[in-house]
Amino acid sequence: MRVITLTTDFGQVDWFVGALKGVILSRYPRASIVDITHSIPPGDIRAGAFTLLQATRSFPPRTIHVGVVDPGVGGDREAIVIETERALHIGPDNGLFSFAVRDQVIRSVRRLANPRLFQHPISRTFHGRDMFAPVAAHLAAGFPLRQVGPPLTDFVRLDWPEPEHQADRICGQVLYLDRFGNAITNLDALTLTRFAESSGGVAICVGRHRGIQMGESYSAAGRGRPLALIGSTGLLEIAIHGGSAAVQLGLKVGATVTVCRPSGTIMTNAGVCD
Amino acid sequence: MRVITLTTDFGQVDWFVGALKGVILSRYPRASIVDITHSIPPGDIRAGAFTLLQATRSFPPRTIHVGVVDPGVGGDREAIVIETERALHIGPDNGLFSFAVRDQVIRSVRRLANPRLFQHPISRTFHGRDMFAPVAAHLAAGFPLRQVGPPLTDFVRLDWPEPEHQADRICGQVLYLDRFGNAITNLDALTLTRFAESSGGVAICVGRHRGIQMGESYSAAGRGRPLALIGSTGLLEIAIHGGSAAVQLGLKVGATVTVCRPSGTIMTNAGVCD
Amino acid sequence: MRVITLTTDFGQVDWFVGALKGVILSRYPRASIVDITHSIPPGDIRAGAFTLLQATRSFPPRTIHVGVVDPGVGGDREAIVIETERALHIGPDNGLFSFAVRDQVIRSVRRLANPRLFQHPISRTFHGRDMFAPVAAHLAAGFPLRQVGPPLTDFVRLDWPEPEHQADRICGQVLYLDRFGNAITNLDALTLTRFAESSGGVAICVGRHRGIQMGESYSAAGRGRPLALIGSTGLLEIAIHGGSAAVQLGLKVGATVTVCRPSGTIMTNAGVCD
Repeated sequence: MRVITLTTDFGQVDWFVGALKGVILSRYPRASIVDITHSIPPGDIRAGAFTLLQATRSFPPRTIHVGVVDPGVGGDREAIVIETERALHIGPDNGLFSFAVRDQVIRSVRRLANPRLFQHPISRTFHGRDMFAPVAAHLAAGFPLRQVGPPLTDFVRLDWPEPEHQADRICGQVLYLDRFGNAITNLDALTLTRFAESSGGVAICVGRHRGIQMGESYSAAGRGRPLALIGSTGLLEIAIHGGSAAVQLGLKVGATVTVCRPSGTIMTNAGVCD
Repeated sequence: MRVITLTTDFGQVDWFVGALKGVILSRYPRASIVDITHSIPPGDIRAGAFTLLQATRSFPPRTIHVGVVDPGVGGDREAIVIETERALHIGPDNGLFSFAVRDQVIRSVRRLANPRLFQHPISRTFHGRDMFAPVAAHLAAGFPLRQVGPPLTDFVRLDWPEPEHQADRICGQVLYLDRFGNAITNLDALTLTRFAESSGGVAICVGRHRGIQMGESYSAAGRGRPLALIGSTGLLEIAIHGGSAAVQLGLKVGATVTVCRPSGTIMTNAGVCD
Repeated sequence: MRVITLTTDFGQVDWFVGALKGVILSRYPRASIVDITHSIPPGDIRAGAFTLLQATRSFPPRTIHVGVVDPGVGGDREAIVIETERALHIGPDNGLFSFAVRDQVIRSVRRLANPRLFQHPISRTFHGRDMFAPVAAHLAAGFPLRQVGPPLTDFVRLDWPEPEHQADRICGQVLYLDRFGNAITNLDALTLTRFAESSGGVAICVGRHRGIQMGESYSAAGRGRPLALIGSTGLLEIAIHGGSAAVQLGLKVGATVTVCRPSGTIMTNAGVCD
């Protein structure tokens, strides 16, 4: 009873997700299929990669993660499977799994090339149904990984956006806006702790909002007031208790979030990071 | 193969629901996980409570219902499990299960306090993933309930909004607006039957709309005309066949719905209930 | 471990889908339940029928497909099960399964009439929960089909909208707009191939857009340019790579799509099909 997860930009209005599941269950009836999300913005590989990073951590070993954010479907990008010490990752070779496998040992990478595993005729527009889902099902059912296709030496990797360390500050950025309007950044807990230790504290600035209070939970600040906290991802989030930081602070993916010394917050030029 | 249901305000865009399922399957691979909904309006405990009341009725005995509408996450509210004669209910102690367990015998209430059952490190913002889901999985797998944590004498209960009985009428209110725009009220079938028997019939008024016709199914009135009927919840609904009562009559949760005698409908002051 | 699929217009906000699943699992705990979609536009039987046509192809033999797009619920339409050589189809007798079973041998059609199989009391507004789901579960669990109810000689069938063949062109129409804004038509690959062979090629016209380029995949045309291709349904689609054909070309369901000879594209009166 192996777990197969699905992360796509298919939405939930059409039959696309249902078709993937039918294809899987036709080949591996005992599959435990889990939807991560089907609401990745169409073609947004980075959003898909961040989502897969966060989601895949919670799954049992040997889970098979199928990802389909595939604007190049039917073109010349490869279809691949990435084997790590924890899981298998199946999808287009366009960077979608870059973040999820970033801290893992890569055991093998293979091109999906065994026609016996595909659903025929293979369409030019729906490789999720015709290639990724059936390969996942066959692997879950015990088909040997080495017969999926020839090994590749590498796969497309997106750069993780590292924060920029400057003399008296760290410049991070917003990576993701969640349903509650929380803005998740690329600033992790360790980075903040070290900065605080060497600087005598931390102040967070986002655009014109300086000295945003650090807290431990969403309710640490008053309702409607901006708050920064280490969220469930282990990354710094900007939040507004009972509101939406994204809407109320006008935050977008890519917006700069600055970590400063507390005393210098108001005085310094907030534009230094930009 | 025990059933675990999930009712949250997480939406289906982010990875939050997927993470819950991964955590459950990591601990209890044979779980049959059912999504009730993840579209409770953020933080709306009453909407969650009404949804859980309606949904949980349809599940088999010994189902484990996980509810996460948790605006106080990370604050001082407790995390609890409520055992009734039919099911287990796991979530924040904020009233979310009040309506679902209202007509059931409460066998026990316990605080979730056994750290062996949690996923560590426990975040301050995502107890669904770190506490509720893993506890549900362990209980489904047979972990003894009494070792989850110490017993509590009670839990937070929301008042069920009872209709108000007046001399010649009953004043009810809208509790829920569904996807089709039907407005579900707190007036049940028995209440209406008794009123009709003693008053020689029933007329329904909503705002300026008086004498709304009673029917047995949505198609009982002409398309576009308001209609009142006992819906699948056993409660009076206001509906418009082929339309939306919520939109077309401007109904909100909390709006007054009056049950009058048929003869007095037009004459009386419709404002009496307000 | 039989597969039961659900295709409805219930949305995913309320508890309706959860209730269906609870009812099924109460009667057949080993069910493998798959959501096709719950976002059929309310009451849109044709959209439901097209979705079921596309989705059901991907499922294993003996799957039980439950469809609930049922604007006449509680009225005088029958509740039926259609048995084909591949699958069972359970829902209202309003045409919802017309397209899915169109190319299959119909083995039997029965009215759902055995009260032992229903959930009581049967509401007048939610036959999905009270009739279709429990019947599906009982059949999945092995209850004999012939005891579900009396045989019927036929069921309601929607006409498939055939393309119109004219002297020098074929007039098709848009049947469905998907999440990506692709417009799926009633023109199949064989029809196009034959026309191309006899006419020395193919040109596609949609409204004022004449001579739309044929391609093999979404990326065959430049970003932002209209493209026609045989999609994963085997039908001609109008697409815009990196955009939405529905939005950018103003396409609606029912819009005319014309197949012309390449040389005549610009000269001929594009209104001939309308």
